[in-house]
Amino acid sequence: MITAVLGGGQLARMLALAAAPLGLRTRCLDPSPDAVAGHVGELVVGAFDDEARLAELAAGAAVCTFEFENVPVSTTQWLTRHTTVRPHPRALGVGQDRVLEKELFRRLGIGVADFRAASSRDELREAVSAVGAPCIVKTRRLGYDGKGQVRLAPGPELTAAVDAAFAELTAGNDGGLIVERVVPFDRELSVLAVRGVDGAFATWPLVQNEHEGGILRRSRAPAPDLDPALQRAANDFARTLLVELDYVGVLAVELFEVGGRLLANEMAPRVHNSGHWTIEGSVCSQFENHVRAVHGLPLGSTEMAGGGVATMVNLIGRMPERRRTLGLPGVRLHDYGKAPRPGRKLGHATVVGTERAAVDAAAARVLG
Amino acid sequence: MITAVLGGGQLARMLALAAAPLGLRTRCLDPSPDAVAGHVGELVVGAFDDEARLAELAAGAAVCTFEFENVPVSTTQWLTRHTTVRPHPRALGVGQDRVLEKELFRRLGIGVADFRAASSRDELREAVSAVGAPCIVKTRRLGYDGKGQVRLAPGPELTAAVDAAFAELTAGNDGGLIVERVVPFDRELSVLAVRGVDGAFATWPLVQNEHEGGILRRSRAPAPDLDPALQRAANDFARTLLVELDYVGVLAVELFEVGGRLLANEMAPRVHNSGHWTIEGSVCSQFENHVRAVHGLPLGSTEMAGGGVATMVNLIGRMPERRRTLGLPGVRLHDYGKAPRPGRKLGHATVVGTERAAVDAAAARVLG
Repeated sequence: MITAVLGGGQLARMLALAAAPLGLRTRCLDPSPDAVAGHVGELVVGAFDDEARLAELAAGAAVCTFEFENVPVSTTQWLTRHTTVRPHPRALGVGQDRVLEKELFRRLGIGVADFRAASSRDELREAVSAVGAPCIVKTRRLGYDGKGQVRLAPGPELTAAVDAAFAELTAGNDGGLIVERVVPFDRELSVLAVRGVDGAFATWPLVQNEHEGGILRRSRAPAPDLDPALQRAANDFARTLLVELDYVGVLAVELFEVGGRLLANEMAPRVHNSGHWTIEGSVCSQFENHVRAVHGLPLGSTEMAGGGVATMVNLIGRMPERRRTLGLPGVRLHDYGKAPRPGRKLGHATVVGTERAAVDAAAARVLG
Repeated sequence: MITAVLGGGQLARMLALAAAPLGLRTRCLDPSPDAVAGHVGELVVGAFDDEARLAELAAGAAVCTFEFENVPVSTTQWLTRHTTVRPHPRALGVGQDRVLEKELFRRLGIGVADFRAASSRDELREAVSAVGAPCIVKTRRLGYDGKGQVRLAPGPELTAAVDAAFAELTAGNDGGLIVERVVPFDRELSVLAVRGVDGAFATWPLVQNEHEGGILRRSRAPAPDLDPALQRAANDFARTLLVELDYVGVLAVELFEVGGRLLANEMAPRVHNSGHWTIEGSVCSQFENHVRAVHGLPLGSTEMAGGGVATMVNLIGRMPERRRTLGLPGVRLHDYGKAPRPGRKLGHATVVGTERAAVDAAAARVLG
């Protein structure tokens, strides 16, 4: 049985590595012949709107899934006529639009930071004025890892900054903007959840995430010193969301903890960087559970394994020396096999154990 | 960096899956275009004595290793002129000849069952008479999984049985025979060991193995109720053996426990079926450690993980239903993606945990 995957980056690669022991083969579509999922599975090289390549991807595949949420709508439309697509493209549609996403979150009863949509310069000025600075202006669509967003500070320069942000973010983008109030959060969390074809549902323990320059640097699970009520709230929200979307597969929601409650920031309808620790840190990883879910197989346990504490650090721009990293006790390396480039996610490393301080210290040694 | 592997079966496949997270790619050579390592890495299809295909295999590879020990001598000779071969072909030479192997074991101070070499019918009659029945006649070379061997019982039919065994085992085989005394062993064990380029050495806990029809059915680690003196003896022997062979990589030795001491049966200069439990059951699996070793990278820890108790069952001839197997709590499936065939190893399943009885019971459920 073949899993077709739109995208051939590290997420597709780790899906393929998780699928292989289940006896499932993986075929990815990616515009680049260097896509690293091709090292461990079949790779179709082509654009996401090339129907001949899409046909090649779908041929004989039991199911098609994706490793990134910005799949063109035309692609999902084409694919749903030729194979089973999971999760359902409707989740993509919501995930691709920050305004729809936040409206859905709010409707499902979870808090979100104040936001306003804007599609012209005047609307943007009004929206910034209504939401209040500090705020962040983002494109409604197609932003990730801190790209496609501008932060606005309060002060006399604000109007000029609004106009500059409008010019920057609308260049080559006619999808509209969103203004979001900057929340003075205590920390960033994420909840990873999975839902099966039969409605089976599970979450992993809440993860605490640290970003720099818009890119995830470190994830720790379970989030240290967590109020159990927050885990329950996150689970309830994730369950409601996945049922609402009739979702099948793994989904991540980025959250803010603010004064003892959760605000939802955004969702990723796919496996997520903040869940990479699950490869060693849980009985069944996010990758294996996504594969199980989209094939209609029973879900695996999301319980913690390996001691109950996990820390993952991203390896960005430049890989640490392999020999040194492999010599560090307890460190599990994941080198995606990608060519180095500033700001590029090239790999990650995970440490699992029983003691938070020791695990964090071991993970920190990976970075120097 | 590329690891070249002679053979593209399940061992090569699991080597490739272990190598990928280290950022290492795998290229296998196999006569069959259906070789299952090709699902997760590059596959060169060709005979092991086809120099053009060997050149393709070796091109740009950092190191060449093998998943089976019956590599033709001419192949290893060719390869050592074109790339680094690890483990060194000398270990292959010993591992390919049951007589050389047992002579080496004896010389290194570990017991072996009585044996005699024989290359003619008269020599075979003499050897059987000297060793005594019950005994097993085997080809010196190229036997595995119970193939190429005949068991002889004492009694009036013995001489006729010797002659029949000679006829059967020498048909198409001019490599000679060996007669081994049948040992009334208490149980079968194996020791898995790994040695690095720098001489670093480690073993995994002794494994207890159960065979049926010459094929491994179940491995349990650590071997239940083990006298620690046996583990020490096995470690000492493995260390001596790997140093003697200047061995780099993973090697397994099959052992008999007889009246509180160990007899060495045979060695496999490669990763071994009785070590598959290490994927979940140890910090660093036999596959990852073999890859690390042959690339001259630091070895990973061979300590038990996942609770300290592991049981592996082989899935032979016919795979159990995937959905049912994945629904069994605690079971980790490894489906090699092979076409079913009677007697063929198609996969295995591993259960890890803290309690021997519970782990064994969970593993037993896989088989029905």
